[in-house]
Formats: sequence, structure tokens, C-alpha cells
Amino acid sequence: MSITIAAFSGSLRKDSYNTKLIKAFEQLAPEGVTIETIDIGKLPLLNQDLETDLPQSVKDLHNSIDNADAILLATPEYNRSYSPILKNALDWGSRPQGQNRWNKKPAAVTGCTPSVLGTFGAQNHLRQVLTYLNMYTLQQPEFYLGSVADKFNDKGELTDEQTKKKIIQFWATFIEWINKIK
Amino acid sequence: MSITIAAFSGSLRKDSYNTKLIKAFEQLAPEGVTIETIDIGKLPLLNQDLETDLPQSVKDLHNSIDNADAILLATPEYNRSYSPILKNALDWGSRPQGQNRWNKKPAAVTGCTPSVLGTFGAQNHLRQVLTYLNMYTLQQPEFYLGSVADKFNDKGELTDEQTKKKIIQFWATFIEWINKIK
Repeated sequence: MSITIAAFSGSLRKDSYNTKLIKAFEQLAPEGVTIETIDIGKLPLLNQDLETDLPQSVKDLHNSIDNADAILLATPEYNRSYSPILKNALDWGSRPQGQNRWNKKPAAVTGCTPSVLGTFGAQNHLRQVLTYLNMYTLQQPEFYLGSVADKFNDKGELTDEQTKKKIIQFWATFIEWINKIK
Repeated sequence: MSITIAAFSGSLRKDSYNTKLIKAFEQLAPEGVTIETIDIGKLPLLNQDLETDLPQSVKDLHNSIDNADAILLATPEYNRSYSPILKNALDWGSRPQGQNRWNKKPAAVTGCTPSVLGTFGAQNHLRQVLTYLNMYTLQQPEFYLGSVADKFNDKGELTDEQTKKKIIQFWATFIEWINKIK
């Protein structure tokens, strides 16, 4: 088995917990799974005027999506919805019109937050966007992670055993899903 | 009566219909109402690391919100949700934590789109964000405008008489609402 997954963190903060969450997913990934974390912080704000001569960062994004077998998203929650950084990348990946690169990609949504709610609001909105983009999104298990300050150590490593177990179970179902779709 | 309204278009495209819609709102505004269209295209993508030394564009945004009596939003719909540009501005206006500039501002949501659905999906998500931000958002009338290509002329002017009438009625209710809140 060889599966390449393009992973996207919705936070640009250097010490972002969502970026750390992706790192934890990478460390707990089954053999044969490669995670490529895609830098979306250099994308310009969406502007259709730029489509006549697409910026290199957008072309790079398009290639990353094309080369991936599946997509893993980790979103913070800002003001009870998803991060604009992630939506900006999702929208650029669907442009120009008629060239939706996300189409039919297996995908999974995760997210974490210092508060207890665990990004339900963010993921709820995000899933509706993925529906429109026709991404084949894993339905269950959902993955909401709250109170992150207690679950990672100072080096940014996931230390919470229950969450580790949850990630390993998540991977098993996600890989099964990816193989079904392929 | 003297009311200053900060208006935000969620599209950066030079020929953006949402920007034209704000222009139409401006032209049909009651006497005493001043519209200031705020440029949000120069804001960086949200990044809490920048909060130690806030970029000038964010400070300008904060001042624009502080100086406004009310907020008018016009959102395009991308992939059945709001524009990342607008969410980026909304999130920056709520940062740093505990300094939510939008708090208790009277607000109204509008939006237009070439398709027939008229941005219902975008506004639906947006209204939930405004709820969290504690903006006093006008409930009714809602304002969804579809098929925009038929409603503006080549100069970008609103020509559709029914829509003009709708905007004038919208203003009457919105001004009443702003005065009630003040």
C-alpha cells in the first residue's frame, strides 16, 4: 500500500495546535502512508482577476491536490466558523471555474481548539463547503478535539493517550475509505 | 441625522458585482447617510503571530470599525459559503482576543451572485459568525440578489427597478434599526 495524503492546517501561527495535530496524525499513520503538509500561507486572497495569469503559489496548490490520493484538513475555529486561510485555499483549488481540483478526492476533516467545543462549529460549516466541492468526505468518525493545552507537551508532541488511540482508529477507517474510493 | 456606515465587499475583483451593489446602496442611501467602503484586500491572512506588532492594515481596519455607526456587508458566494476575504476581515476585527471591535455594532447582510440562488448559502454561514461576534444584525428584510448580469449595465450601474425599490425599502428598515440601537 502506498498512499499520499495532502494535509492542510487552517492556522498559520508558528505554534499552531492544528499544525501539531497534523504532525501527530503523521506520526501515528499506518505504514505506506505519506503525509505532505501543504503551505497555504503564501496564497494571495482570492481574486478572480489573478486567474488570467495564475500566481505560482496557486499553481503549486493545484499540483499538490492533483498528486494527492486523499486530503486531510485540520481547522481551527474562529468566531464559530472555519478559518479563512483554509477557505481561501479551498476556493483557489476550485478555480478557475470548471476546474475544481478537489472533485472526487477522498477527504477527512479534523480540528482542535483550546476551548472545550473542539471545532464543531468550524467543521460543520466546512463540511457544507466540501459537499459542494464534491469531495468524498469521511462521514464517521467525526474528530473534534478540545482543551488542547492539556494534550500536547511543550515540544508540541501529542501526549494524551486517549487521543492517540482515537487517531489510530481514525486512520484505520480513513484508509479503508480511501481504498474503497480509489 | 448623520450616520456613517462602514461597507465591506467580499470580492476583490475589479468588476465585482458585490462592490457594485454597495455602490448602488450608496447611491440610494437616505440623506445624512455616509458610506465608507473599506479596503480589506491588503489585510494579511489571519495569523496570531502578527498580533505582537499589528500590521498597519489591521490597525486601519480597527479604526474604520470604531468610527462607524453601523456595518454593511456584501458577500459573494463561493462553494456554498461566504468569501474568505470577508471572513478574514471579520476575524481580524475580533483580534487580539478580548478586543472584538464588532461588538454591539448594528449590521446588515447583503450579497449578490450571477446564479439564481442569490448568496443564501453564504449569508446563512455569515449570519452565524455575526451572532458570535455579537453584532446587532438586521433580521428582516433579508437581501438575496441573483442573476446580477441582467440587473447592472455595462457601466456597473444598477438598472433593475425592482431591486432599486428593494434597496430603498431595505434602507428605511436598516436606518430605523440603527437609530433604535444607538
